[in-house]
Amino acid sequence: MEELDIKGRMAREASYDLSGLTAHKKNEALKKVSESLIRSKKLIMEANEQDMHNAGNEGLTGAILDRLFLDEKRIRAMSEGLIEISLLDDPVGEVIMMKKRPNGLLVGQKRVPLGVIGIIYESRPNVTADVFGLCLKTGNAAILRGGKEAFLTNRAITKIIQSELKSMKFPDGTIQLVENTSRDSAMAMMKLNRYIDVLIPRGGAGLISTVVQNSTVPVIETGVGNCHIYIDEFADPEKAIAITVNAKTQRPGVCNAAETVLVHSKISGKIMRLLSDELIKKGVEIRGDRRVQALIPEVVELKDEDWSMEYLDLIIAAGVVDSLDDAINHINHYGSGHSECIITENYTHAQEFLERVDAAAVYVNASTRFTDGFEFGFGAEIGISTQKLHARGPMGLKELTTTKYIIYGNGQVRE
Amino acid sequence: MEELDIKGRMAREASYDLSGLTAHKKNEALKKVSESLIRSKKLIMEANEQDMHNAGNEGLTGAILDRLFLDEKRIRAMSEGLIEISLLDDPVGEVIMMKKRPNGLLVGQKRVPLGVIGIIYESRPNVTADVFGLCLKTGNAAILRGGKEAFLTNRAITKIIQSELKSMKFPDGTIQLVENTSRDSAMAMMKLNRYIDVLIPRGGAGLISTVVQNSTVPVIETGVGNCHIYIDEFADPEKAIAITVNAKTQRPGVCNAAETVLVHSKISGKIMRLLSDELIKKGVEIRGDRRVQALIPEVVELKDEDWSMEYLDLIIAAGVVDSLDDAINHINHYGSGHSECIITENYTHAQEFLERVDAAAVYVNASTRFTDGFEFGFGAEIGISTQKLHARGPMGLKELTTTKYIIYGNGQVRE
Repeated sequence: MEELDIKGRMAREASYDLSGLTAHKKNEALKKVSESLIRSKKLIMEANEQDMHNAGNEGLTGAILDRLFLDEKRIRAMSEGLIEISLLDDPVGEVIMMKKRPNGLLVGQKRVPLGVIGIIYESRPNVTADVFGLCLKTGNAAILRGGKEAFLTNRAITKIIQSELKSMKFPDGTIQLVENTSRDSAMAMMKLNRYIDVLIPRGGAGLISTVVQNSTVPVIETGVGNCHIYIDEFADPEKAIAITVNAKTQRPGVCNAAETVLVHSKISGKIMRLLSDELIKKGVEIRGDRRVQALIPEVVELKDEDWSMEYLDLIIAAGVVDSLDDAINHINHYGSGHSECIITENYTHAQEFLERVDAAAVYVNASTRFTDGFEFGFGAEIGISTQKLHARGPMGLKELTTTKYIIYGNGQVRE
Repeated sequence: MEELDIKGRMAREASYDLSGLTAHKKNEALKKVSESLIRSKKLIMEANEQDMHNAGNEGLTGAILDRLFLDEKRIRAMSEGLIEISLLDDPVGEVIMMKKRPNGLLVGQKRVPLGVIGIIYESRPNVTADVFGLCLKTGNAAILRGGKEAFLTNRAITKIIQSELKSMKFPDGTIQLVENTSRDSAMAMMKLNRYIDVLIPRGGAGLISTVVQNSTVPVIETGVGNCHIYIDEFADPEKAIAITVNAKTQRPGVCNAAETVLVHSKISGKIMRLLSDELIKKGVEIRGDRRVQALIPEVVELKDEDWSMEYLDLIIAAGVVDSLDDAINHINHYGSGHSECIITENYTHAQEFLERVDAAAVYVNASTRFTDGFEFGFGAEIGISTQKLHARGPMGLKELTTTKYIIYGNGQVRE
């Protein structure tokens, strides 16, 4: 596709210039764009109104419309997000290690930008500004391909960014929006190995799976979270209830919310009634296995497929297990490798759970809701990786870089 | 494909056990297998003879036959390789960082095995033992799919390994060889996302490109090296000649050998004759652009496609450039991102080359032949990555691991 070939080449060329920029220059650009978004809020809101109008005509539903919608408050949040990014440390240029080899060669490893990052995303137009900020801060060129429903808003935001960058003499390929929002343009992007170094899909499970299935460009998979709370026989009941309720209900629509609770049979008689009452009080539908049904008659009958569900809603699957082993096996079998938690006061059980559960984040006695760049202490994130290559868990600035070996010699040749 | 489904599941199950093994136990297994390979050398050589015989009948050529061939010396090298791996530090379990968050959560990041590693490879049966050693040391299960031409040898080696592992009570899925060597089995492996965490192709450019094009499992791309030596106007001629000759001729068939030399026009008159004489003395065919032809009449005329060639042979492309900029642009355009070198005594040129050339390893005044796990000081490698995600440059033990976040709480919930 011609549009992508041209944009790909421009991004690649821009990436060579961007990799050498000082943090000072990049932070200045982030601040200018941040101000410009506020100054141009009317333009953005007008474009957004048009997108909302078109979406309404096409019969899109409430949740999608809400994700698409921008008002002054949301524009202010985008603008503030860029300031936050400008305040983070620039990871580019850090020399991670350097050592002298016996032959006198000085071998070092330096953090450098990935190069060109492609993002394929849906609905939320704030992604446009977020991704720009994260990519610019890390010296990467970005090619954005947003959804058709948000195109006018995305274009308005991109133009504001591009105009500020132009006045600061950044290369034209620094950030580009793909104008063709057909399925073809997404497919073409997935095959653009010549120009794109990594592709990050942001959106629902369908979008992510399409990208993983079709992309020849390396992909970082983000998002799906079927997270578990395991209440061990040695759990403190108070912590167990508080954490389970928080992990399920504090914000049920996000990937680090809990979807299943497993309770040890030695404590289930004591805890399941109290826990269910608290969950039901918060409006949660409990889908229980036979042993949970026997304890709490009013739960919904659980079907096998419930163990694999990411409800993203006020629903929780509940089961009784007979051992730590059974809990770990269940989690490794049904989990999506996102965030998993044990509630226990037993030292050996805690260590074993941390060791044997295969997930991006494994917790003892704390809510899975903490899996997040800010909560982990490194700031804004571009997504939460559930794959094992390159990045696992919340992906901050460091995860948008790679390394290169730099070798200082004085004439060494190999014998 | 049924074979791969079964082997995939077994590998996945084995990976849960392997991840918790002590370095002591893993090193013991490496030593036992190392001894067993020597004890069973007759079995291996008999199987290899049969493979060689079949390959001869099918009309395979000298280079492939040589890669396929095993004798006592090569079996000894495989065996010693396992001992070398047993002596390296075990990266698994290292806690890379751990800090206390303001809410009291202790957030750490721990190095853990990738899980299940798939290797698709050609001809060389020593890969079977090498990959076993690297994967076992890092607690990963391995599924190996070697070439049809080496099947009997690979099977003999795998059986020896499996028998030692069985006597030490390792899980059955620790290392498995795919028995079906048709194209279908390779394709099935590339789609086995449920069970395989990462796929590493080892072989020629054709194999690697097939895997990159078809795999939905994350791939680490290794190998292709179109490496350059740039002789700057401020080069020391002695270093320039010694390094270029070494990088081209010390072992021309490997990926870190130089394929192109670029010479600054201000020094080309002085150096090109001497350099050509030395290269020709070593049997190198020089393919020169017009300006090289004008200086050295006996060179072969260079065609545009020569700039992109990985000759893996005693051939070198040679050109004259007018600036450091031109050299960097040429390298970033035609290079494969492997190893690139500048010869210069000028500080600013050296720094600029290190900064702006986009490759896994960038050198000042040393031969590109040093891009290698042992030469860089971390020991045996599974390949040299030319991609930017996860691993770049020589991939040692650390690159066969991922991380997980481990979080110690005492009841924290998110507000």
